[in-house]
Amino acid sequence: MASPKPRLQLRVRFGSEHSLGMGKVQLLEAVDELGSISAAARSMNMAYRHAWELIDDLNRCFGEKVVSTASGGSRGGGAELTALGHELVARFRDMEARAREALADDLAALDRRARGGDER
Amino acid sequence: MASPKPRLQLRVRFGSEHSLGMGKVQLLEAVDELGSISAAARSMNMAYRHAWELIDDLNRCFGEKVVSTASGGSRGGGAELTALGHELVARFRDMEARAREALADDLAALDRRARGGDER
Repeated sequence: MASPKPRLQLRVRFGSEHSLGMGKVQLLEAVDELGSISAAARSMNMAYRHAWELIDDLNRCFGEKVVSTASGGSRGGGAELTALGHELVARFRDMEARAREALADDLAALDRRARGGDER
Repeated sequence: MASPKPRLQLRVRFGSEHSLGMGKVQLLEAVDELGSISAAARSMNMAYRHAWELIDDLNRCFGEKVVSTASGGSRGGGAELTALGHELVARFRDMEARAREALADDLAALDRRARGGDER
């Protein structure tokens, strides 16, 4: 059985307090798709409070909201990405794609090394 | 007060079980420098058992040891990196440097975005 290819993940650290990585980007993408923080959290098996803390970490990091929420109303707390939220998702996914391309040979070499051991 | 520039970190995931990231690379570098897993763990404020588990995760991922240990003897458990251990450290640091260079413009843009909010 072939194991999956090694996968590169990025994280951007802003000082010791804030960071942007795949988890937060996936959460923003889920908010964008589902229109609600609680639905996004559920879709990722994450507590609402944790999802909110991840979003608030980005809000504080950038001094500007990444998700705008409509409290009350018929949808009871609908949410959508702000322009900044969309920008962060697009930039991160682009950075990820370019890093994977730039390091493709290294990932292939690590893959051969791992296969050489596990499943020659 | 200027905040530090955003810093890019990489992690390579091998399937769902194994990964190689900055934590393990720093641990290998500490073993290389200090010649002992327990001294390396202490230098990183890490429990010996946790350090050993991180090293063993790499051993299992690559089906080959990344650290060789001399049990007993006058140094009571000296350790050094194997050729594979050295190779992983060098490759990871090189990947990191090239990714940071390839994504320098994005990191600068994220920095401006974060500063725009926090400390205009």
